[in-house]
Amino acid sequence: MAVVAGVRVFGSKGPSWLRCGRWAPLSAGFCSPGAAATPRREAEAPRPTSSRQRDGIRNIVLSNPKKRNTLSLATLRSLRSDILHEAESKDLKVIIISAEGPVFSAGHDLKELTDEQSPDYHTEVFQTCSEVMMLIRSHPVPIIAMVDGLATAAGCQLVASCDIAVASDKSSFATPGVNVGLFCSTPAVALARAVPRKVALEMLFTGEPISAQEALRHGLINRVVPGEQLEAETMRIARKIASLSRSVVALGKATFYKQLSQDLRTAYVLASQTMVDNLALRDGQEGIKAFIQKRKPSWSQ
Amino acid sequence: MAVVAGVRVFGSKGPSWLRCGRWAPLSAGFCSPGAAATPRREAEAPRPTSSRQRDGIRNIVLSNPKKRNTLSLATLRSLRSDILHEAESKDLKVIIISAEGPVFSAGHDLKELTDEQSPDYHTEVFQTCSEVMMLIRSHPVPIIAMVDGLATAAGCQLVASCDIAVASDKSSFATPGVNVGLFCSTPAVALARAVPRKVALEMLFTGEPISAQEALRHGLINRVVPGEQLEAETMRIARKIASLSRSVVALGKATFYKQLSQDLRTAYVLASQTMVDNLALRDGQEGIKAFIQKRKPSWSQ
Amino acid sequence: MAVVAGVRVFGSKGPSWLRCGRWAPLSAGFCSPGAAATPRREAEAPRPTSSRQRDGIRNIVLSNPKKRNTLSLATLRSLRSDILHEAESKDLKVIIISAEGPVFSAGHDLKELTDEQSPDYHTEVFQTCSEVMMLIRSHPVPIIAMVDGLATAAGCQLVASCDIAVASDKSSFATPGVNVGLFCSTPAVALARAVPRKVALEMLFTGEPISAQEALRHGLINRVVPGEQLEAETMRIARKIASLSRSVVALGKATFYKQLSQDLRTAYVLASQTMVDNLALRDGQEGIKAFIQKRKPSWSQ
Repeated sequence: MAVVAGVRVFGSKGPSWLRCGRWAPLSAGFCSPGAAATPRREAEAPRPTSSRQRDGIRNIVLSNPKKRNTLSLATLRSLRSDILHEAESKDLKVIIISAEGPVFSAGHDLKELTDEQSPDYHTEVFQTCSEVMMLIRSHPVPIIAMVDGLATAAGCQLVASCDIAVASDKSSFATPGVNVGLFCSTPAVALARAVPRKVALEMLFTGEPISAQEALRHGLINRVVPGEQLEAETMRIARKIASLSRSVVALGKATFYKQLSQDLRTAYVLASQTMVDNLALRDGQEGIKAFIQKRKPSWSQ
Repeated sequence: MAVVAGVRVFGSKGPSWLRCGRWAPLSAGFCSPGAAATPRREAEAPRPTSSRQRDGIRNIVLSNPKKRNTLSLATLRSLRSDILHEAESKDLKVIIISAEGPVFSAGHDLKELTDEQSPDYHTEVFQTCSEVMMLIRSHPVPIIAMVDGLATAAGCQLVASCDIAVASDKSSFATPGVNVGLFCSTPAVALARAVPRKVALEMLFTGEPISAQEALRHGLINRVVPGEQLEAETMRIARKIASLSRSVVALGKATFYKQLSQDLRTAYVLASQTMVDNLALRDGQEGIKAFIQKRKPSWSQ
Repeated sequence: MAVVAGVRVFGSKGPSWLRCGRWAPLSAGFCSPGAAATPRREAEAPRPTSSRQRDGIRNIVLSNPKKRNTLSLATLRSLRSDILHEAESKDLKVIIISAEGPVFSAGHDLKELTDEQSPDYHTEVFQTCSEVMMLIRSHPVPIIAMVDGLATAAGCQLVASCDIAVASDKSSFATPGVNVGLFCSTPAVALARAVPRKVALEMLFTGEPISAQEALRHGLINRVVPGEQLEAETMRIARKIASLSRSVVALGKATFYKQLSQDLRTAYVLASQTMVDNLALRDGQEGIKAFIQKRKPSWSQ
């Protein structure tokens, strides 16, 4: 699959789930000052992520194992591009993010964070990283992390930010920034929303890794399987989601995150309206009728 | 126990915990347009819930096992009525919600959600359901779910909404709406406030059930016991609560949910004031004096 | 180490993390009406807490085992003083709070809560208690609870309020206020932010204790070890934290709690700025350069 910064996707103002409010639109990174020349340079180097899609399932792979799949600015942009590519296409139902090599991702590239780079550059790194993490949440399809190895710092943040995560039993997770004098404050945003507070604080204050089993127990990941079953188990979940109505799942995902930060009453007002809207979707009625008629539903998308 | 929509309870504006703000008062359902004729018709059909009370413990039973205890609009209204009945009586200390048959509740009645019914009707269904769930939280006494079997969709929401839940080891829990094209967005409101985010998302995106043991591990329920011990264990907890001061428990429950969504400082301002108010209650002083005098307290209510 | 209410620390308005907004500054307790005479009287009685510091690790010990280390107003003030003492000193890296005797803390002293004391006095007790709990969170260094025994009511709140908690396997935790007619509403503030909602509600409504293993499973504590390993395990974590840069850890801790109650986008704006600020710290650059140069970092503080 050719991966291009999809003009179709970003036409005019882009879909509503891309409009970010406080910060610039997510697509702005593609045309921010200084970035104009980047694509050309990037085109010369191998892309740090790769992407292929089949039967509604897109596999995005962090493919720079020699650099421990660090989330350099180039990698973050490439990842963002792969996630955003034809996001509105009805052929896309679910995304899996995985990695080549024994390290899922070692987080930011520390060489980009020395004082040889300006604070403005540092700001761009963290802003782009935050945008990718928020993009996972605002994206219309579920995004699954498939982890086989070590995920640290922003790599751990990436796992925490995905909707679902499956990991091999040899995987581990850490936020070790304190060891190099850079507290994992942005990873903490995602981590603190995934695991109990004290678990997050111990990881952040000591930098020590937790095992896949501990990550499972605390809610950071959904399943732990032997390495040889990792792909099969992840694909089982992905295929299940790909068999569902995209429009129904997209509506549900958007409302889930929207209601989460509201008080109970506001959450119910939002979610009740979503239920009524869901019933007004073609696939909403098709699903219910198929159930009553005891037949398989035929989704419009 | 005769169950009547208690005029005493709903006199004038009703107690303060019933005033809902944004939506109509919870009691409005009893006199909403179209509902006026309902009681007569309902009187002809057997009530879909039953209720009895003894020693301060009210047992409300979903009693329509042939229809898998679906939360039809009639069932939701019946459940609401049973929960609200003489809610202010000092004879009521705790409520248990259970069900007849192998399914605790299969959630909404899908036949009520086809396009043969108007969007207004759909709105009434979800609004009534949300009111029942919020009523559990705003009710002055603790409400315990006793689950022996499958709880799905709004049935799972009901379990998640109760203050405490006890389940038999054969019970399971699911939000399978996606399978019929109706994402469990309202159940997600309660689910997301009970379990870690990724657990909720996997349940919502795949529709697959989790076992009682998994539900226990993730905080959806409090205890899992063999089926034959379910009632004994639930009653043990209920009797303990029934032995306490109703006014003290009611004050504590209300403050618990109130402080939950506040920032830490506001939460402590609220809760500190509650402690002082609690000490000013007759039962507050009685309890402390009994403790100091090494005797059993004698509660006023 | 002599423990004095550090004039240096509380000079003028004190550091920014002490400014509390709605309530009076935390240091106000030291000069509130009626408290002026207290030090003299306290000087005659043995202090209810003791404190010593070595190699950056401060050990504060609740040292009134005969009174089950109740958090009387005098104890709360003494604890506050020990926590605040030279809090800005670069020699302080981490605090451990532990207790003498088989009870970590039995919570408030009920004799202070009878109607022989005025509501104003009760207010002062709960306000001081809340200040101590919030102080743990706003303090620049991580604070670890080391628990070997029973922690109930405000004692359980103290454990829940610490950043990290380690407990011996014989420890247990309860919020039994309902038994004496005083619902644990202020402990609930900390408890509800540490464990799943239903776990908190069962503890609050029944007053029954949970074991160290249960507390671990639900996130109330971080580790459970045999009693004879408790100090070694706690010190291992403390020494690790003491080996890190104080300024980096302080910045990270402050941002962690700040972003926690924000929506995701605001949280990322805050945390991204913190990352940039962290990189501008001397220790931020030192850590990264040491990493790149494969040497041990040398922290400025």
